[in-house]
Parts: sequence; structure tokens; C-alpha cells
Amino acid sequence: MSLINFDHISAGPIRPEAQEAMIAAIKKGYGNPFSPHQLGDEAARALDDARRAVASLINAASPREITFTSGGTESINHAIKGVAAAKADKGRRIVTSNIEHNAVLKTLRRLKMSGCEITSVPVDGYGRVKPDDVAAAITDETILVSIMHSNNEIGTIQPIEEIARIAREKKSAFHTDAVASVGTVPVDVQALGVDLLSFASNQFGGPSGVGGLYVRKGTSLWPLIDGGAQENNRRAGTENLIGVIGMGVAAGIASREMDERIERSKSLKGKLIEGLKERIDTIHINGHPDFSLPNLVSLSIAYIEGESIVLMLDDEGILVSTRSACASGSLRASHVLSSIGLDWADAQGTLVITFGRENTEDEIDRFLEALEKVVNTLRKMSPLYEKANRR
Amino acid sequence: MSLINFDHISAGPIRPEAQEAMIAAIKKGYGNPFSPHQLGDEAARALDDARRAVASLINAASPREITFTSGGTESINHAIKGVAAAKADKGRRIVTSNIEHNAVLKTLRRLKMSGCEITSVPVDGYGRVKPDDVAAAITDETILVSIMHSNNEIGTIQPIEEIARIAREKKSAFHTDAVASVGTVPVDVQALGVDLLSFASNQFGGPSGVGGLYVRKGTSLWPLIDGGAQENNRRAGTENLIGVIGMGVAAGIASREMDERIERSKSLKGKLIEGLKERIDTIHINGHPDFSLPNLVSLSIAYIEGESIVLMLDDEGILVSTRSACASGSLRASHVLSSIGLDWADAQGTLVITFGRENTEDEIDRFLEALEKVVNTLRKMSPLYEKANRR
Repeated sequence: MSLINFDHISAGPIRPEAQEAMIAAIKKGYGNPFSPHQLGDEAARALDDARRAVASLINAASPREITFTSGGTESINHAIKGVAAAKADKGRRIVTSNIEHNAVLKTLRRLKMSGCEITSVPVDGYGRVKPDDVAAAITDETILVSIMHSNNEIGTIQPIEEIARIAREKKSAFHTDAVASVGTVPVDVQALGVDLLSFASNQFGGPSGVGGLYVRKGTSLWPLIDGGAQENNRRAGTENLIGVIGMGVAAGIASREMDERIERSKSLKGKLIEGLKERIDTIHINGHPDFSLPNLVSLSIAYIEGESIVLMLDDEGILVSTRSACASGSLRASHVLSSIGLDWADAQGTLVITFGRENTEDEIDRFLEALEKVVNTLRKMSPLYEKANRR
Repeated sequence: MSLINFDHISAGPIRPEAQEAMIAAIKKGYGNPFSPHQLGDEAARALDDARRAVASLINAASPREITFTSGGTESINHAIKGVAAAKADKGRRIVTSNIEHNAVLKTLRRLKMSGCEITSVPVDGYGRVKPDDVAAAITDETILVSIMHSNNEIGTIQPIEEIARIAREKKSAFHTDAVASVGTVPVDVQALGVDLLSFASNQFGGPSGVGGLYVRKGTSLWPLIDGGAQENNRRAGTENLIGVIGMGVAAGIASREMDERIERSKSLKGKLIEGLKERIDTIHINGHPDFSLPNLVSLSIAYIEGESIVLMLDDEGILVSTRSACASGSLRASHVLSSIGLDWADAQGTLVITFGRENTEDEIDRFLEALEKVVNTLRKMSPLYEKANRR
């Protein structure tokens, strides 16, 4: 029985073309991009090629605006801590939302320990931020607004263009965590008008542990990692060249195949949601019906526990997730789900299903069948479900 | 003509066994080590294996004391900034040496901007720190001493065990940048008595962009990268699993082959130094004759410029370096060479030659011949050399 991977948000497979490029790079044996000799020159060229491909994927005005990092989490830390340090003399207030990823939340919590003031705007039942709330939260001392592009648990896409315009008007820097979006939906940093944007390679068919930070020319930002002059003096340390090469190839393909993949994802998502509603009672599809990632379905199933569903589906060879992989291990209900008004019990029974390009309609059928069986089994054991049906 | 790589300190080739493991990992398609399903479990096991191999290479008491990072520079930033933040209420003084790597220097310069006081102890003509100088520099407010294990430009190894004991007696944390040492010479964190130790995979046959930080149990340290609970809550972000797997395999081999490789390196180093003295006049071998990396020769050639030698040797298919790759592009004389008393002109004509396991005695002969030719050509064009010989 072949494995069905519906957990692309945790780690999608590396695109075959990116795999080939990485394997070729490993066999070739690049030097250090900073060495002045021939092995160094080749490495520097490979780095440039990847930087151009990534810049093109998000429509950066120049490849120099791309800083390679060890992934989305480092990019986010760099953006937020970097602005906070560079602008410490101008103010210490930062505005964010209630449904950010742990990388943003914990970074802001850290800054709070050293005196920053964090204002967090709420979201509606679909998980959308109201731009007016952001406008109202910004003061003269606000140095940064950080609102995610799309949410990794419920898929809702924010009105970033509008929020970025507000931040600009009020002279605040604006960062968006676009880790779940870049490579999945069109992201154009110039159209969005953002100053900083974080992304990760494993969200679009590149390897894990590689990512990047877009830094608009002229943005004040301290490095997170000091040392050598790599990455235009923005991020010290010899690059993960093999990973960067994989990300570059994956970025090129993501650009070319974007439209086609969105169409396919939408059709799988439609089929899945329809099937779920037919087969399983008392469920809720989370997130916005329109402004949402095409490859993500967040589903709350009443009376049972998400973790149990994940493990039982795993036995059937189907991989799904309950929430952000970065938050796994925590027993607390997701802050994202409670922010959109789900009560604790519903939030516990939540699955996050994310597609990749290799998923098929047949897999949706197999998943629906398995899920129905698992839900029936678990509900038979659930005192809550029993009680509700006795009413 | 086959390429001779005498620039292993910038980026050595990835060991064939590590290459194979990385290629297998790419083809296999691991999940996210934090996912609770089967793809996640496999990834978590691969991560554990690598952590054990690395812990064993430096004799850590437990694999939990190893935090994987994106390389030596991140490890160093994490150690220094992490202690400075965690102990900010106890004091703000840090003691270091005059010949640290840019990653340490620039990190300390950054901390100085936010109020830390940095005391830098000098070195002798061989590049050795005097433990008494460190003892004298530590005050009640000193929270951290950071002295490198070996120097990446001149190879000198410091009396770390003694310095770490002094730091411990004076209640300061102790960090050592062991990037140039780990995998090249025996490094035993328990025998050394260090609290924190930074290392990088590409120094011992693993890929670039991966490294680690040893953190002795009980050491107060803030994360540099906040977010998910990865790496025992020390370093957030999904790991570069392919790179970590490569580092793990390389670490295992480095442990097993250490003695044999040191013997081989010493013999190549002896032959090289002897040949240099025979063939080229007015040269100086930098660094300590005994306490020194066996695979590194730092050589100052009077009257000519290192950069020119590197480029002319490159034409002959021989790769060497003038200084730390991380400092390339800078036109200033190396702070390491000026700290050991070399004058500016000599410091300019300095080559760093670093061996790896694939280098041979024949390559030493070819190098000596090529270098003699290059030096003669350059000295013919050197007004300084001409003047000196007219005296």
C-alpha cells in the first residue's frame, strides 16, 4: 500500500529536479563562494543563479534583496529582531496578529522580555485581520508591523497589500511571514509593498533547513548572525550551498507551474470538502472560503481528538497533521483555532490536510474512506459523542 | 592536469561516505522530525543518529548537549549572544583574545553597541594566549570568556584546558570557537572543561552550512532563533536534515580516522616546510611549532602579495588561501598576523595551506615547484624585493 502524503505543510517531498540538482552539487564538490580561486568562483555562480530564481519567484526588484537563511524561522527572527535592534532609538512598539506562527509569537515574546511592547490585533471567525484594526494599533512609536501572509493551520490569506499600505503611511516597517504562501500562491513583493518577507524552501519542493528573507532596498535591519561579509553583509556564515541550489531549482519550477498547480489543488480541495460533508456529520471547515490557500483544508471533527486520528490514519498509510509541526508535542489547544472562536473540544479534533503536486483524486477517495472508518471507531469510544446523540 | 586542493579550511570536499548518505537521504524523502506520523519518526531517528555521532566526536556527556545549527558562525553567535542575554543581570563584561575569527569579533562588536564591555587579551609571537592574562582580565562582572581552540589562519592551538579552569574558578561561562579543530585534532569537551563549544561540519568532511553548538548541561543560554521546540528548545526551525545526516556520517569517520590522518598530515606538513625553506628565501612560517594544527601551514613570503600568489597558483590548478575565507574581499591586513607582530608588508604576502585526506606527497612536490616559479615571477616585478637585494 503506497503512502499518501497529505501533510505537505510539515515537509513536502523534494521536487525530482531539485533532487537531481542537489545530487549533482554533492558529487561535483563546490568550494567556498568566498574563495577567490576557481572552486570559489563556481560556487559563487551557483549561489547567484539560485538567488536570481528565488528573486524572480517573489518578483523582487533585485536579487540583492534576497538573503539566504537556514529556513523560515531564522528569516522571521532576523526580520523582527533585526528591525527592533536597528530602530531601537525610534521606538519599541510592534504590532502583530493573534494567529501568527510560533516563530513570530516566540520571537515577539523574547523582545517583550527586553522591553518591547507588543500589540496583537484579533481576527474574525475566518481568521482574517481587519486592516482598520492594524491602523488603530499603530502609534508614533511603532517601528514594525508583522502580519502573516497566510496561516499555516487554517489557510486564510490576509489583506497584506492593504495592511502594508497602512504601515507605510504610518512610517512603520512591515514584515510578512509568507512561509505557507511562497511557491503555493502568487506572492509579489512589489505589488504587496512589503519591506520584509520570510519564506522557506520546503514549502515549494526544495529541501528543509533552507529559506530566505526578502529585504527591500533601504530597509534598516541588523544582522541576526554577525561575522563574515556573506549575503551582502546581511547574514554571516558559509552558505548551505547544496540546500540553496535545491531551493533555486524548486523556485524556478514553482514559478512556472504555479497556475496549473493552483487549478489542480482547487479541484482536489473541492472534492475533499464535498466528500467530507457527505460522509462525516458534525464537522467544520476552518478558514476563509475564498481568501485561502488552495492546497490546505483545516477540518474540525467534533467529539474526538486530532492526535488519535493522525495516529490511526498513519496505520492506514495516510499522513496528515493536527497543527503546525513546530507546535507538535504541545498539549495546549492551538492559539489559531481559539482565535477564530473554536471551543477547546472542537479545536482538539482538528486536522490539517495539505496537498502537493503528486496527490491524486484516487488518494482523496482512499482518504475519505479511511477517515470515515477512523472517525466512527473513535466516536464509538467517545463519551462526548454518545452524550450528544442521546439528547 | 588534476586540481590540487590545499584550501581545506575554506571548504574541504564532502567525504564519499557522507555524500552517499546525503544522496540516499535526498532520494528517500524524509518527513519533518516533529511530525507524529511515520515519515516524522524516521526523520527523528536519523536526527538522533547524527546527534550521537557528533556527541561522540567531541565526547559530550549526552547527545542532548548538541544543538544543530547552520554552521560555525551561527553557533558562535548563539553561544556569545545567548550567554550575554541570559546573564545580562549578572554583568556585561566579556573576555576574548586578539586573534579570534570574524564571527567572534563581529559578534562582540555588536554586543558592544548594546553596552557590553569587551576585554581582549594579546597573544605572543606564536599566537598563544597566556592563561595569566585571561585570569587578570576577568572581573566580578565577567559573564563569559571566549577564546578559540585553534586559529584558522596560523593554526596555533590554545591552552584551552587551563583557560577554561580559570574561567570556572572565577565563575564565568567559557566558550571556545573550535571550528578549525573539531574533526582535525582530538577535542574532548569534558577534558577541556568548556561550557560551550562551536564547530562546523565542513571542517571534517561534511557539507557547508551545517554545524553545531555544544552546550554543557546547566549552562544559561538564550536561543538565538526563537520559535518551535526543536533542538530541545534551544534552536527553533526545521532542521537541515540532509546536511545533518552528512555531518553525522563525517563525524563518525573523523573519530575513527583521527590518529591516522594526523600522522599523514604531519608528514605532509614536515615535507612542505622543509621544501619551502630549501626553495624560497626570506620566508617565515607563522604559528606555534608544536601547539598547532597538523594540517595547516601559514607562510609569509616577503616582498610580494598573497592575493597575486593565490591567483597565479589557481592558473596552475592549485588552490590555496591567503586568510580566512570569511574575511576575503577585505583589503586590510589580517588582524591575526598583525597580532603576532608581522608587519604590514609581510602580512600581505601570506598563504594559508590546509591539507585534507586526499592530498599526497606528489602534490607537495608539484606545489613547491609551482610556488617557486610564481614567487620568482612576482618578485621580479616587486620594487621592494629589488631594493632589498640592492642593499
